[in-house]
Amino acid sequence: MRTTVELIAHKRDGGALSDAEIRRLIADYAADRMPAYQMAALAMAVFFRGLDDRETRTWTEAMLESGQVLDLVALGAGRIDKHSTGGVGDKISIPLAPAAAAAGVIVPMVAGRGLGHTGGTIDKLEAIPGYDAALSIARFTEIVGDVGCSIMGQTEDVAPADKRLYALRDVTGTVESIPLICASIMSKKLAEGIEGLVLDVKVGPAAFMDTVERARELAEKMVAVGREMGKRVVAFLTRMDEPLGRMVGNACEIEESVDVLRGGGPADVVELVEVLGGAMVELARGVSFDAGRARIRAALDDGSALARFERMVAAHGGDLAKLPRAAGETALESDQDGVVTRIDGKELGLVAMSLGAGRQRREDVIDPVVGVRVDAKVGERVTRGAPLATLLHGQGASGVPGPEHLDRLRRAFTLAPEAPKALPSLIIDRIG
Amino acid sequence: MRTTVELIAHKRDGGALSDAEIRRLIADYAADRMPAYQMAALAMAVFFRGLDDRETRTWTEAMLESGQVLDLVALGAGRIDKHSTGGVGDKISIPLAPAAAAAGVIVPMVAGRGLGHTGGTIDKLEAIPGYDAALSIARFTEIVGDVGCSIMGQTEDVAPADKRLYALRDVTGTVESIPLICASIMSKKLAEGIEGLVLDVKVGPAAFMDTVERARELAEKMVAVGREMGKRVVAFLTRMDEPLGRMVGNACEIEESVDVLRGGGPADVVELVEVLGGAMVELARGVSFDAGRARIRAALDDGSALARFERMVAAHGGDLAKLPRAAGETALESDQDGVVTRIDGKELGLVAMSLGAGRQRREDVIDPVVGVRVDAKVGERVTRGAPLATLLHGQGASGVPGPEHLDRLRRAFTLAPEAPKALPSLIIDRIG
Repeated sequence: MRTTVELIAHKRDGGALSDAEIRRLIADYAADRMPAYQMAALAMAVFFRGLDDRETRTWTEAMLESGQVLDLVALGAGRIDKHSTGGVGDKISIPLAPAAAAAGVIVPMVAGRGLGHTGGTIDKLEAIPGYDAALSIARFTEIVGDVGCSIMGQTEDVAPADKRLYALRDVTGTVESIPLICASIMSKKLAEGIEGLVLDVKVGPAAFMDTVERARELAEKMVAVGREMGKRVVAFLTRMDEPLGRMVGNACEIEESVDVLRGGGPADVVELVEVLGGAMVELARGVSFDAGRARIRAALDDGSALARFERMVAAHGGDLAKLPRAAGETALESDQDGVVTRIDGKELGLVAMSLGAGRQRREDVIDPVVGVRVDAKVGERVTRGAPLATLLHGQGASGVPGPEHLDRLRRAFTLAPEAPKALPSLIIDRIG
Repeated sequence: MRTTVELIAHKRDGGALSDAEIRRLIADYAADRMPAYQMAALAMAVFFRGLDDRETRTWTEAMLESGQVLDLVALGAGRIDKHSTGGVGDKISIPLAPAAAAAGVIVPMVAGRGLGHTGGTIDKLEAIPGYDAALSIARFTEIVGDVGCSIMGQTEDVAPADKRLYALRDVTGTVESIPLICASIMSKKLAEGIEGLVLDVKVGPAAFMDTVERARELAEKMVAVGREMGKRVVAFLTRMDEPLGRMVGNACEIEESVDVLRGGGPADVVELVEVLGGAMVELARGVSFDAGRARIRAALDDGSALARFERMVAAHGGDLAKLPRAAGETALESDQDGVVTRIDGKELGLVAMSLGAGRQRREDVIDPVVGVRVDAKVGERVTRGAPLATLLHGQGASGVPGPEHLDRLRRAFTLAPEAPKALPSLIIDRIG
């Protein structure tokens, strides 16, 4: 039997690890028998040498099996979730889960909290007074059974090996490894007891994957590994050149989600809900993608998606009527005539975070009403003095943004005298 | 200022680190401000991306300056040491230091202890009853001044950052990085306050560098870095296809060293003493290599090298007349007629270690009389029943080797019916 050091050197030299070796490494690391410095060296070796599909699948399974795996077979067939690699303003899960449920998908969705410039689905839902995202598995299963969907926060018991490894990768320069990203995402998602998964891999200057090539590589890996594990998996590469929708924050993103569930809302959010939801229906019910998309559109138009959302919020103890609103608004005015050509989502997210919409450290407390409304999206024309964006905030000295916030926000916007000939489409490609 | 994680990612992506960045990383790691897992990830990134000569030099300097650096300027000019990457039976330092001193070199030599299958110069010298290798710097300096040479053990104060990093590399699969090997060797050696260094880089199946290409790369790096630091440095690539000399152990290697100092001894040991010593004289005194080699040969022939050795041992408190001898000998007989074509030094070293000649763990105690005598070296003909090697050991049940030791020893020898046309020469090349 090779020692841990020999396994690190073997991977370093381009060798493949056996399934038993990968399982041993992950188990030893999860149980504190393998020190962090050895896992850090191994993760860096994996960064350079990669993991083939078989190794990635085993690595994923080993992390998955380090914790609790839900058994939702009793809920019946058609259990499909969605995962996005994330971006500023990405509230898609919130209208998507109830819309898919209304269209016949069973959606047991476990979502995360935000850290840094991107927000988290759970933080947004918790802007609804009373919304309890920390459910027992029994209650979560019950809500999914009754309503067709539930969105809860991650429990401590899901893939603890991944939690540990992710924290280590974050401080050792090994986040950007495609097989490790794949294993991290898939181990958490497949712990949900789902039969299939629709993936939204963002591409853009501020996205996790900054080129189409890298995004495609990750998408193909996730589709291959998921299928190896017997799941139905489809991935979309989607463009992320600006924040999604017009709202960035927490309560304001719930408002925007409700707009979509009422049949309105910004075009980019609506398109993603239709496309990702359409694929969820396709995977759940064996219909064509076009038929699935039509069902989602119908659920948004006929009020059934909104009704599911209201039932889900109520089941979680939330009271939508009490959604808080910002007491103050401060507009950023354009200093020129022109057309917006780019909005730096990361800068915008950092401004929102610095005002209280997000966390710099895990222990920070979020102010649900704080946010940014994008008044001029990419491709839209503004005149000098018209608002580019509006900061949503509290009142009184502490809650009001200063000139430094407005200056930083201004730098997030790029304007040109004329509009580009054509805007690139939001959906770049479908894999699988 | 870039964070530690950013520096790891920068090196990972093929970037160069600035001198200030390298100094900060080494200082943080030595002072426990940088966790081991970050250094492990960085070391693996360096394994893949390398360090250029400037980075290696700064890395070396930072490790050197993490500890005590001797100032031996008062001893005068001509302070040159030798370093070997090590091998089984490598006792070269023991006859070399006094021979070089007799030929006009000032040799302040700090040497190591053995671990695993290779022995250490200090362990060998400590086989001489009374030999004290743990000197104060003042006493060491005094002996070098009086005798012209002294061989002492490493103090805790030399390059502590390297000690820490070496222990980490050993358990993270990052030993085999040429710039890190170079920085480790050079930081320890240049702490001796020397003006120049002769390097012996071994090449062979059981050596640290297993190909001429890798050995040449390491040698060139060490020569370049040493010269960047203002030192005179020369490296030799030397072949290591069998143990050096005929003796492997501790007391027996002292005996063999004395044979060389008396003008006899095995041809391979003599050749290395002459070549490495010749280069030391060349670097110390500015004469040609041939003139330097002739001076070494003369010192071995006229008894002046032996006299220096006796004075050095006495100055360290040792009594050569009391050198212990093995009470028992057990021969391994050849089971065929033939010519020895290869001797696996590692296997042979492991047998010697398992009998008590070396340490498996740092706390193990060495039995100085235990060893192996190679009766048939590569190229020598044996008849069936003639001894291939002889185990030197104690008497009584515990000290006597069993059949498993002889079996293992036998596997270290490869015989062929006929001798190869020509034996390759011991010295492969000179760098610098």
